Amino acid sequence: MANREEIAKWLQDLQKHICSELEKADSGALFTVEEWQRPEGGGGISRVIQNGNVLEKGGVNFSAVHGATPAFLSTEKEHTLSPSGRAGEGLFYATGVSIVLHPKSPMMPIIHMNIRYFEMSNGVHWLGGGIDLTPHYINEADATFFHQSLKQVCDKHNPNYYTDYKKWADDYFFIKHRNETRGIGGIFFDRLNESLQMSFTQNLAFWKDVGMAFAPIYTELISRNKNTAFTEKETEWQLIRRSRYAEFNLVYDKGTKFGLETNGRIESILMSLPPLAAWHYNYNPKANSAEAKTLSLLKKGIEWVN
Amino acid sequence: MANREEIAKWLQDLQKHICSELEKADSGALFTVEEWQRPEGGGGISRVIQNGNVLEKGGVNFSAVHGATPAFLSTEKEHTLSPSGRAGEGLFYATGVSIVLHPKSPMMPIIHMNIRYFEMSNGVHWLGGGIDLTPHYINEADATFFHQSLKQVCDKHNPNYYTDYKKWADDYFFIKHRNETRGIGGIFFDRLNESLQMSFTQNLAFWKDVGMAFAPIYTELISRNKNTAFTEKETEWQLIRRSRYAEFNLVYDKGTKFGLETNGRIESILMSLPPLAAWHYNYNPKANSAEAKTLSLLKKGIEWVN
Repeated sequence: MANREEIAKWLQDLQKHICSELEKADSGALFTVEEWQRPEGGGGISRVIQNGNVLEKGGVNFSAVHGATPAFLSTEKEHTLSPSGRAGEGLFYATGVSIVLHPKSPMMPIIHMNIRYFEMSNGVHWLGGGIDLTPHYINEADATFFHQSLKQVCDKHNPNYYTDYKKWADDYFFIKHRNETRGIGGIFFDRLNESLQMSFTQNLAFWKDVGMAFAPIYTELISRNKNTAFTEKETEWQLIRRSRYAEFNLVYDKGTKFGLETNGRIESILMSLPPLAAWHYNYNPKANSAEAKTLSLLKKGIEWVN
Repeated sequence: MANREEIAKWLQDLQKHICSELEKADSGALFTVEEWQRPEGGGGISRVIQNGNVLEKGGVNFSAVHGATPAFLSTEKEHTLSPSGRAGEGLFYATGVSIVLHPKSPMMPIIHMNIRYFEMSNGVHWLGGGIDLTPHYINEADATFFHQSLKQVCDKHNPNYYTDYKKWADDYFFIKHRNETRGIGGIFFDRLNESLQMSFTQNLAFWKDVGMAFAPIYTELISRNKNTAFTEKETEWQLIRRSRYAEFNLVYDKGTKFGLETNGRIESILMSLPPLAAWHYNYNPKANSAEAKTLSLLKKGIEWVN
């Protein structure tokens, strides 16, 4: 296994670093800090920003929880068999940083990142993570910049990772009942341990680079878009896109499900939900509008990088 | 089995009747009507009102769908064994009326009703339903009126139904991750067929009376509250309560799950979601405020009728 205390310490430092970079970019609000304990073991530190110049609501959360393996994980036999061979007896440990930022401007994208380390008392352990971007209005130059940045991180470690994890993100960040992706995707990976090509240590280095990529990517997107003017009509569309975001997180997101089922701190789990969101009945944007163009690009398999 | 065409026809008449009563009470907007087909069999009629004097967004939906039993129902073996004895081979038929009304005023409660008839090709068939009320601010006189009205409907048919189905509603309309009920409950029942005391025909009469109780109950609540003044602060609290409503419907509601898993019309299924909702981080109302009082009453087991 990896040294989990070292990983948890690195994640806490990453959390502080990201918050500090975001505060500089926002130049308005500061993150509040709350530490919490989980009755069954472990806890976390929630850092939340609200009503900033750029960020209307955002959370950068660290957690490290442990205890008896929850029932919904026990059903995945291959990962939870305890030494005695019966499922559900083992202990788990999970630590990670989760971020969701809802900007005030509809011209600025919502962003999400999560990186996590997981281990079971039977010795099984793995890394997971992902970053994805949800523009209210898709700007192709920003989309290419975003994917190019992720591809650089991936390519530094493994020539297949960008292609594989970009596809995984398309499949994961998908709102099935709307038949649309949450946004323009990004990268997603899970159960990463070691392979013929990559040791666990090499994958850990890749995983840390994903975490370190977050602040430069989003602060660049802030500086590109913070002075773009917008109208009430564009804010209305933003509220509709945010309601889709809430649908994804409440219906499909595995991190949210994991949090709810392991009795995590509810306000930290649901900090990902938007400050304000709208559900109109049967809303369809006008043909050839900017809104319709964005909708047309919310699908799997679009290549943003040549 | 019951005569399902007769039941479906009765439900469509009920839908029209309820919309007509609500239009009179709203005195502003009218319901739009959309018919839809389900590719796998059946369809529905959605009636939706938006931006009325009283109702900001509301749907009164009829559907009658049929086809191969979906996988998530096939796991309930006792109900889906086909004559050959293997699960998942059967056909199902489901018809019902579902209502959710989001009023404009925070002083007016959100209301929900669903009544449904379900049958399988192996002959198993049952009735289900429920009505529950979600005040943004709990008014004890209104809560007592609401529960008293439901008790009268129940008592007319069976002396145990109110007690049993009121408890079932407390358990069903519960937001587990918030440890709070969705509102003040009401009644909920499912898989009602026949018992030693009640024939299916007698239960069908009870079920129809539940459907018929909806319009008089809600129009009375409209006339009691439509002239009550309210402030922006109260509207802000309404948006927070609506976000809890969205959480319940997206995370727990079985009707929503059934709709999503049987490929129902998405806009009809999710018409229950609020027109506008707010998620603040870690919001707690002030001690002794009207908001805190409402929160303190969002728990199971409160008896509103003596």
